[in-house]
Amino acid sequence: MNYLLPCLKKPDRPEIPRKTIYRLSIYLRCLARLKDNAIRTVSSEALAKVAGVKSTQLRKDLTYFGQFGTRGLGYEVEELFQMISDQLGTKSLQPVILVGVGNLGLALLSYRGFEKEGFEIIAAFDIDPLRRRDKKVTQPLLGMDQLEEVIKERGVRMAILTVDAPSAQEVTNTLIAYGITGILNFAPLVLHVPEDVMVNNVNLAMELENLSYFIQG
Amino acid sequence: MNYLLPCLKKPDRPEIPRKTIYRLSIYLRCLARLKDNAIRTVSSEALAKVAGVKSTQLRKDLTYFGQFGTRGLGYEVEELFQMISDQLGTKSLQPVILVGVGNLGLALLSYRGFEKEGFEIIAAFDIDPLRRRDKKVTQPLLGMDQLEEVIKERGVRMAILTVDAPSAQEVTNTLIAYGITGILNFAPLVLHVPEDVMVNNVNLAMELENLSYFIQG
Repeated sequence: MNYLLPCLKKPDRPEIPRKTIYRLSIYLRCLARLKDNAIRTVSSEALAKVAGVKSTQLRKDLTYFGQFGTRGLGYEVEELFQMISDQLGTKSLQPVILVGVGNLGLALLSYRGFEKEGFEIIAAFDIDPLRRRDKKVTQPLLGMDQLEEVIKERGVRMAILTVDAPSAQEVTNTLIAYGITGILNFAPLVLHVPEDVMVNNVNLAMELENLSYFIQG
Repeated sequence: MNYLLPCLKKPDRPEIPRKTIYRLSIYLRCLARLKDNAIRTVSSEALAKVAGVKSTQLRKDLTYFGQFGTRGLGYEVEELFQMISDQLGTKSLQPVILVGVGNLGLALLSYRGFEKEGFEIIAAFDIDPLRRRDKKVTQPLLGMDQLEEVIKERGVRMAILTVDAPSAQEVTNTLIAYGITGILNFAPLVLHVPEDVMVNNVNLAMELENLSYFIQG
């Protein structure tokens, strides 16, 4: 989640709130479950309910992408699934790299949730790739000197950044120089990047702090 | 990040946007660095810059909590740090439990970032606590039958949920029944909870999808 920017203008597209895009991901998961259960149409009320949003919100989110659904009949599950999948760019497996193979990096490398959703971590990089680690991973673990080659040869655009805070900005600059335009950042600091680069931040301690604030008596 | 709710009303407090609370976490980290460098005052422009926000935003966020700073002199670093730390409830170490010790759960248990920020994972729970795991952890790994005792004896309010999607709602209901009011959810589904329970969702595949949308050419 980017904690700072409410939305982002994409070249040649209308300005769509980031939260709409997050909700598209939720709708996609709900539609996938309907498909698995051989359900072919769904009303906006029913889809909104399983997604945990209001049906007005669902309809508003979808209007950014065209006309969907038939009054009284609802949405075609397959059609809506394809549209959202197209929009999110997750129809074909996208190559992703991971930089920084410590505890968290190792865990993400063995996390099987990404491929199911259309992302493949094709390689991991670390300043010390040969250091003994607690766990074997299936991806190649390479040194930083091979970063450029892999990014360019495989046309990688997205990177998961799990390095420590002091080196995060420098590594980010390197990634951007080699062609990375999307970064999922786990380092607890604000990365400074050019306008055409997108950073989503995941800061686990901040999520706990946020909860902590709201549950105080 | 809760992808659905823009803000939440807390009993006896003004309605404060969630994003303001996330930004407080960022300001706190920036102020901690200033303290480390023995810097005693900071202008709103300088603090806003390191936090990656506009100074108008910073000033607006702080007005929810009272009057801070002196025109021309800026903020007292220590005073502002204490205020934010008080608000976030992270001054004393808060006990947290983790439920679901698979790959991701194991990784979070060995992640050292939480304690530094005021959270201590005091125990982990799993339906199969004795299963052989890739890695040793320092926290006690207990069965679900001990959940109630630990939550009640230690007064735990927050839980990290790293179970798989099919069991997530049921485990959530159990946690709430035993007194948990804040859940950091990593399971890829929308949890249904009573109004007085707060859920923050971290869905790593959704973060990649969100990036993927915005970096398409």
